[in-house]
Amino acid sequence: MPSEFDLIQTYFNWNNKPSEEIGLIKGVVKGIGDDAAVLQVPSSKQLIVTTDTLISGVHFPEQTSPHAIGHKSLAVNLSDLAAMGADPAWFTLAITLPEQNKQWLTAFSKGIKALADKAEIQLIGGDTTKGPLSISITAMGLATSKQLMMRASAKDQDTIYVTNTLGDAAAGLAMLQQCFEGKEDDSCIEQLDYPIPRNQESKLIRQYANACLDISDGFLADLNHILKASKVGAVIDLDSIPLSIALQKINQQQALKYALTGGDDYELLFTIPQENQKTFENAVLKENLICKVVGTIDSSISGIRSTQNEVLSAEGYNHFK
Amino acid sequence: MPSEFDLIQTYFNWNNKPSEEIGLIKGVVKGIGDDAAVLQVPSSKQLIVTTDTLISGVHFPEQTSPHAIGHKSLAVNLSDLAAMGADPAWFTLAITLPEQNKQWLTAFSKGIKALADKAEIQLIGGDTTKGPLSISITAMGLATSKQLMMRASAKDQDTIYVTNTLGDAAAGLAMLQQCFEGKEDDSCIEQLDYPIPRNQESKLIRQYANACLDISDGFLADLNHILKASKVGAVIDLDSIPLSIALQKINQQQALKYALTGGDDYELLFTIPQENQKTFENAVLKENLICKVVGTIDSSISGIRSTQNEVLSAEGYNHFK
Repeated sequence: MPSEFDLIQTYFNWNNKPSEEIGLIKGVVKGIGDDAAVLQVPSSKQLIVTTDTLISGVHFPEQTSPHAIGHKSLAVNLSDLAAMGADPAWFTLAITLPEQNKQWLTAFSKGIKALADKAEIQLIGGDTTKGPLSISITAMGLATSKQLMMRASAKDQDTIYVTNTLGDAAAGLAMLQQCFEGKEDDSCIEQLDYPIPRNQESKLIRQYANACLDISDGFLADLNHILKASKVGAVIDLDSIPLSIALQKINQQQALKYALTGGDDYELLFTIPQENQKTFENAVLKENLICKVVGTIDSSISGIRSTQNEVLSAEGYNHFK
Repeated sequence: MPSEFDLIQTYFNWNNKPSEEIGLIKGVVKGIGDDAAVLQVPSSKQLIVTTDTLISGVHFPEQTSPHAIGHKSLAVNLSDLAAMGADPAWFTLAITLPEQNKQWLTAFSKGIKALADKAEIQLIGGDTTKGPLSISITAMGLATSKQLMMRASAKDQDTIYVTNTLGDAAAGLAMLQQCFEGKEDDSCIEQLDYPIPRNQESKLIRQYANACLDISDGFLADLNHILKASKVGAVIDLDSIPLSIALQKINQQQALKYALTGGDDYELLFTIPQENQKTFENAVLKENLICKVVGTIDSSISGIRSTQNEVLSAEGYNHFK
């Protein structure tokens, strides 16, 4: 392998010149090329930091294209920033590779850059090492304290929403693992490989929401994180769980299982106080975004129940008829 | 494995209560437990960010104790902050483990915590995944723009210094690999396993130095990084390269080879303008630190030469008589 320095310069220093010559882009005083990056955080903003590692065979199937791996590695971190209500600003990339494969690195770099450009997040440093394939990204975002959405802020009678549809990535994984029953649909695999972080939705949601997180472990498991942190319960209307056209075509119980317990959705799950609901929904319509009501926060119960008063849990749902 | 959340709560949430209850420690508005951490960067400071991954068998021998792995994972990142002149503030930890081993995790956690407490850096988030052992840390530090030391700032006739002694870690590795010729010394293995990041020295050095970096790839290779970035050359006095007592006892050429080309020193290499030299050396004495002059920046040459005008290079030195 060439040195770490050369590898980063070759594949990831997209500006291809020292940051001094570019000037201060989005607060980057010094990017790649010194012992560390130097950043200027606006005094009115707080710094939001998240880190996520993707391991081959665990977080993506081994046959996943390097372009998709690049995309997904950044997407899951951008999704955490969206969940907090933070605007993406900077990220570092630590990549471990079994070998230096030019074609692989070029495609990976393109995948990550395409999303970085779209999300307006800048790569400011990295580390490359030799070993079994894994990618660790630390993403940094900015937000005013007012914009931040915490898990612990859900309140009684808040309306619970999710963005877009749930379960497609889990269905996509089942298709790749050849254990999917029903008509296969590439859109599910696309959703697994190229999750779209909901940073645009977050900018709107943070103006109205109490609590928010992103669904990575599955709807029920992640909703539980909000409920535990906020010390409340929730009632979910299973008929209103939003399903894609692909999932509407399969067995309804199976589709709901993907939607409620499947991971890798990277949709936002958030709660809106009733008094904000109407203005929020008007704003959603105006911006052409998709947010669907799925239930209500209820402080008089603990855990998650259906509107038929059945207990819902991620573990339990697998046995739920 | 228990969930990632539980693993982090059990082994790494050392404060063992929500950050809200602790109050704002060193700018941590929200630590472990949400989608991301929330930090407050003082408006007078810049944010310094570095990331380093350690892979078992590459960055530490496979038999290294988990306590030492914990220490070293953080130390190499603290060393980058020291090299920049930044005060340690926060770090994230992404750890990939083949299995959940309670004893291993406890020792690793203790190793990392002991150094974190000493360096006054706070763990603010993490990710745990299953896979071949690797640790990625992203460390964040704070500095005023005046305190920062860049690689590109070395000037003609600056005096070149290093902290403490060089080559011990490389000698320690040779001992573990049973290819060390001479009397073995545990202090070298200690230096390999428990490198001491020079953050205390950095606080002093940054008041006087032009350029600085930490020696991780070897003295000659890292000096070259400063020279290339600063577009200057250097003359090194090989007789003044500081060697530990352990290395003074072995063949002199072999000792110099460890000191000039061995990696993993994590000592600081920096340049002081002549007009600052006297006050700097007085301050070093007063604070009981160890910094040794090893050469001079010379803009009339390129690359590194000895005082006997021999060309010195990391590759070449292996053949140097």
